[in-house]
Amino acid sequence: MPVNLNLPAALPVGGVELATVSAGVKPDGTADLVLIKLAETCNCAAVFTQNAFCAAPVTICKKQLQSNGGLVRALLINSGNANAGTGQAGIDMAEGHCDAVASSLSLPRNSVLPFSTGVIGQLLPDDIMRAGIAKAASAIKESGAQSNASSTSDRQAWENAARGIMTTDTQPKLTSQAVDIEGQQITITGMAKGAGMIQPNMATMLSYVFTNAKIDVEHLDVALRSAVDVSFNAITVDSDTSTNDATVLVASGVGPSMDPAHAQWREFMSALTTVCVDLAQAIIRDAEGATKFITVRVEGGKDIAECKRVGYSVANSPLVKTAMFASDANVGRLLMAIGKADVPSLDASLIKVSLGDVVAFEATGIAKGYTEERGAAVMAQDEIEVVIDLARGEASASIYTSDLSHDYVSINADYRS
Amino acid sequence: MPVNLNLPAALPVGGVELATVSAGVKPDGTADLVLIKLAETCNCAAVFTQNAFCAAPVTICKKQLQSNGGLVRALLINSGNANAGTGQAGIDMAEGHCDAVASSLSLPRNSVLPFSTGVIGQLLPDDIMRAGIAKAASAIKESGAQSNASSTSDRQAWENAARGIMTTDTQPKLTSQAVDIEGQQITITGMAKGAGMIQPNMATMLSYVFTNAKIDVEHLDVALRSAVDVSFNAITVDSDTSTNDATVLVASGVGPSMDPAHAQWREFMSALTTVCVDLAQAIIRDAEGATKFITVRVEGGKDIAECKRVGYSVANSPLVKTAMFASDANVGRLLMAIGKADVPSLDASLIKVSLGDVVAFEATGIAKGYTEERGAAVMAQDEIEVVIDLARGEASASIYTSDLSHDYVSINADYRS
Repeated sequence: MPVNLNLPAALPVGGVELATVSAGVKPDGTADLVLIKLAETCNCAAVFTQNAFCAAPVTICKKQLQSNGGLVRALLINSGNANAGTGQAGIDMAEGHCDAVASSLSLPRNSVLPFSTGVIGQLLPDDIMRAGIAKAASAIKESGAQSNASSTSDRQAWENAARGIMTTDTQPKLTSQAVDIEGQQITITGMAKGAGMIQPNMATMLSYVFTNAKIDVEHLDVALRSAVDVSFNAITVDSDTSTNDATVLVASGVGPSMDPAHAQWREFMSALTTVCVDLAQAIIRDAEGATKFITVRVEGGKDIAECKRVGYSVANSPLVKTAMFASDANVGRLLMAIGKADVPSLDASLIKVSLGDVVAFEATGIAKGYTEERGAAVMAQDEIEVVIDLARGEASASIYTSDLSHDYVSINADYRS
Repeated sequence: MPVNLNLPAALPVGGVELATVSAGVKPDGTADLVLIKLAETCNCAAVFTQNAFCAAPVTICKKQLQSNGGLVRALLINSGNANAGTGQAGIDMAEGHCDAVASSLSLPRNSVLPFSTGVIGQLLPDDIMRAGIAKAASAIKESGAQSNASSTSDRQAWENAARGIMTTDTQPKLTSQAVDIEGQQITITGMAKGAGMIQPNMATMLSYVFTNAKIDVEHLDVALRSAVDVSFNAITVDSDTSTNDATVLVASGVGPSMDPAHAQWREFMSALTTVCVDLAQAIIRDAEGATKFITVRVEGGKDIAECKRVGYSVANSPLVKTAMFASDANVGRLLMAIGKADVPSLDASLIKVSLGDVVAFEATGIAKGYTEERGAAVMAQDEIEVVIDLARGEASASIYTSDLSHDYVSINADYRS
């Protein structure tokens, strides 16, 4: 069961059409292929995994975005097979699938970006993918041609797509924010999938965020990187970095214009950041085997980088994560994980550690007034905040993670990812 | 159950006396205090944890070794409480215990090194420790005074000590090697304890290696660092780095002289390295929840550092470790873990991955002739070697690790370390 995973209802975004089908890549027959058609007015920014073994679709995305000046007219996403570790054959096949989409929807070649998530090291089933693409493209064409066909742009279409990109997720992750701009509305709607192999630097997951705003590519890229830094690049399930992960931000351009000089840019950025943080946290809330949602907040650092380093060292420690699973207020393991973060000239004697608002450790040892009972009361909750004050600067950062449970082991010992 | 943990029988080392008592630090009443008296002829070298939150005993050891020119006449080791995160009070108390040892055994002040392992963040029970020290010191004095007292230098004394330093270990770890030097024998006997919070750079565990050879401090230090690099600094259970860990090498000087100019120095180093590698591997074989002993061998690297980095990235990956637990030949997760190791300009298209002697992955994808069945046959064994060829240099390194099992979670969700 996810830990308190409740997101605002999704708002459809103009200029974006989605079709989701059960192509048969996943053996259980659930939805596994999502085709998203973007209006001609769309701009697109994206960030990708930093894993050296990046998958065929990531290689193609990067190449196409470099060569075609950011022209993106469709996203093709399959779950159930990551098309990773598949060499040139995997690249050739994914390019063929993109061409099939372009041909079916009469789009320019190289304007289709492919994404895959699932098992690594197996070639995609070519026939199954091509049949699925044909079916999804038909749905989009029919929906556009006649208003009584099943819609590919209503709320249901968004919910179907959020389900279609899932692998070991137990719940779809879909959320929206809106900003009023002089009587018009900017909508921002995002979807994401987890749920393991989650670790920073866009080595995270698949996530797609769409807005109807009109934003040029340069500013879209700035906006995406800023939002990703405090959301998708601030979560970890197991320190593992997937070969496939990507976050895409699409501005469809059918709504109000927005840029950093606009009076409401900060408001827009706040809404975009909320969408990304909500999705990133949703991935953790639904992380493999999660029973706790843990925020590691590091304050008083010299810079954000060292705050994140300490935060990840704590958030990734198997000993901290098993203690969290056991609701054990194990301050010693927190100290151990802070101390191993390899922060240059860290003065351990200044550090303060709190569980929620209960100070547990200070310079001289276990904090005055701290008792096991007070620590245990914090740990008994399903949302736990660990606050670490490094007391050497003004920077801070939060890292979000889950605990390490028996179910994590069961899921990953059984699932061939 | 440890994975194939069988070590050669221990040989007592001249000049070393050991007394082990159940002082009562551990609540279960098992042995928890070991006092080791060293002959006046002893030299000593040591390496310690790099965790910034190093424990009180580590702070004292470092200070004493710097101030007293390496003069070490006794080691005082307790299990059950790490005396870490205890501030100045913890340092004062451990220094008091060292003074008590020095006084009881008529040794110079500052010639006693303290070591602690166990729960972090709690002060040692002072009275219990002092009573235990008195009892252990008496045993050593009596054994020296009258030959019919229970011996503190026979094989049983060594086995008792190896048990007395245990925490979550299920078996004592004690091993020996011998080298004949012109009719005389150099013995090398070591003991170690694990079994979690195990990660490199001497942030590992407690281990004590003794030889009767006569070696000066400078060469002893070189010998220790060389042996540790390929043993205790090449293992990982969970990537966590303890606050207390130390390896000590004592040359008691009652046996043959040895130095790098000696014709048999290589033979001596080989025996010392065998003792250290056997102990390091024993820690992994008895790692918390281990069902597999895994060697990650990385070849064809530019230097040893990048080989170790890739090796640790694979060995620490929870997804690799859960796949190992499941005996799943999950080549995809191996690729993922290699790719996330952040090796500069790594060319993924050159890398070759083998399971045992079965080539599983090559440049173009899954290797020709590789089948799931062939991979599964390797994975079904309880000792698994993963061989990764980076194909960019001549360096190589091996990292040893265990799998991530349900028992690992159970042990660490239950045990307050």
